[in-house]
Amino acid sequence: MTSKELFDNIRAKRSFLCVGLDSEFGKIPEFLKQEQNPVFEFNKRIIDATAPYTVAYKPNMAFYEAYGVSGWVNLRMTIDYLRANYPDMFLIADAKRGDIGNTSKMYAKAFFDTIGFDAVTVSPYMGEDSVKPFIGYKDKWAIILALTSNQGASNFQYTEDRYGSLMLFEKVISHSKNWGNTDNIMYVVGANRADMLKEVRRLAPDHFLLIPGVGAQGGSLSEVVQAGMNDQCGLLVNSSRAIIFADSTENFAEIAAQKAMEMQQEMAKLLSSKFQV
Amino acid sequence: MTSKELFDNIRAKRSFLCVGLDSEFGKIPEFLKQEQNPVFEFNKRIIDATAPYTVAYKPNMAFYEAYGVSGWVNLRMTIDYLRANYPDMFLIADAKRGDIGNTSKMYAKAFFDTIGFDAVTVSPYMGEDSVKPFIGYKDKWAIILALTSNQGASNFQYTEDRYGSLMLFEKVISHSKNWGNTDNIMYVVGANRADMLKEVRRLAPDHFLLIPGVGAQGGSLSEVVQAGMNDQCGLLVNSSRAIIFADSTENFAEIAAQKAMEMQQEMAKLLSSKFQV
Repeated sequence: MTSKELFDNIRAKRSFLCVGLDSEFGKIPEFLKQEQNPVFEFNKRIIDATAPYTVAYKPNMAFYEAYGVSGWVNLRMTIDYLRANYPDMFLIADAKRGDIGNTSKMYAKAFFDTIGFDAVTVSPYMGEDSVKPFIGYKDKWAIILALTSNQGASNFQYTEDRYGSLMLFEKVISHSKNWGNTDNIMYVVGANRADMLKEVRRLAPDHFLLIPGVGAQGGSLSEVVQAGMNDQCGLLVNSSRAIIFADSTENFAEIAAQKAMEMQQEMAKLLSSKFQV
Repeated sequence: MTSKELFDNIRAKRSFLCVGLDSEFGKIPEFLKQEQNPVFEFNKRIIDATAPYTVAYKPNMAFYEAYGVSGWVNLRMTIDYLRANYPDMFLIADAKRGDIGNTSKMYAKAFFDTIGFDAVTVSPYMGEDSVKPFIGYKDKWAIILALTSNQGASNFQYTEDRYGSLMLFEKVISHSKNWGNTDNIMYVVGANRADMLKEVRRLAPDHFLLIPGVGAQGGSLSEVVQAGMNDQCGLLVNSSRAIIFADSTENFAEIAAQKAMEMQQEMAKLLSSKFQV
């Protein structure tokens, strides 16, 4: 998917919501646990309920890998279901991968060719040759960690370079934006770092940003939009637990739809203040 | 496994060799590709041939994930085979994982509980709460990326902190060594960075180091030992392609054994100059 196609979908749906499929087996409703592929059955119902309000889904790989082979079967079924029924959805593997070149090449093959995702989240620690293999695919994206939403972000990401005025996360953006372009690189910036979003926009005015941390982690949507929205929207705001685990009864999918709709309505207002949507 | 048990195994085998199972389907001998689980059949033969000369195996997750569900089946069979037949081997998941706390917890579950590895390689970019979940397991290890062997290492890992005298990889070591101890944290330091190994040893004199980059990537074993060996050996030196893909005929396992034995013999000499082995 190109950035233009993504923006077209955002305008059509009046939403830049990404639903995170952090579908931990232990947390799905009890009545689904008897199914043959319970995590897929959970995801299928969440997807059908929330699809009208979202433009992207982001399975978090850890929650599938934790169940080994059966986890990968459920992941595969989820992506196949999405591709068959919602071909316009932007599908992100939240995988935080990154390794030496020949290894990153195999990770890119895993997520882009074998499973069929549109994008993979990538850790920048190992530098250019660890990220480049994710960039060479037509219409596929590397989403590079810049400033993350967790507490530990402050351990290393704010390190100020002695020879420049940039902090590590800024250095990551300023180097890596030259490894590709605005049609194959996005950045992860936590919603709870809205004060830093302006700085990110100074360095990367035209890139899409994937913003976790709204909802369970406490970030504010309007602050994110004020600091980070550009003239192609340029934002995908993710919410995981606050939507998919809002309820654990037989009504879980309806409640998830309600939560997603509430976010979409807020997004529609914020979009209409800037665009004709 | 504790560091003492690992050192005991190193003394008993007169080897600190780790064989990297970067078992790419496309590169295994043609006659194995007809098997039901070709990558497992390849690994089984490599393991049986090289086990006398090694203390550790390190499957590289990308080469299994690239084949989706069947890749995970082959990985699982490999680990089950190792546990059943070589219970003293130290088993490392080369996975470069790291995410917010609740997600890293699931990755730890995947590699330690579900599959049964002893250790996982972890990327430090997201800081303490992204690494800690890998440290809480009894006799299990987080192997944290410090200074990697690839060219891109120079993009960010050498960044000098404006307020200290440490480069990023040194800051990673100096912070993270307090998150655990020498029985649950190791560091990755590339063999081709032998000049930096002395600096690593100054910061982490007692930690085990996992050293990639000897062999295909060109690092020197004697330089690594001179700069990095401590009084518990403190080194696991990995070789992947130079051993497992040394030959692609029906004799591939014998040739792999030969290559592993050559490294073990060099290691035995280097060990005997320092220890009674």
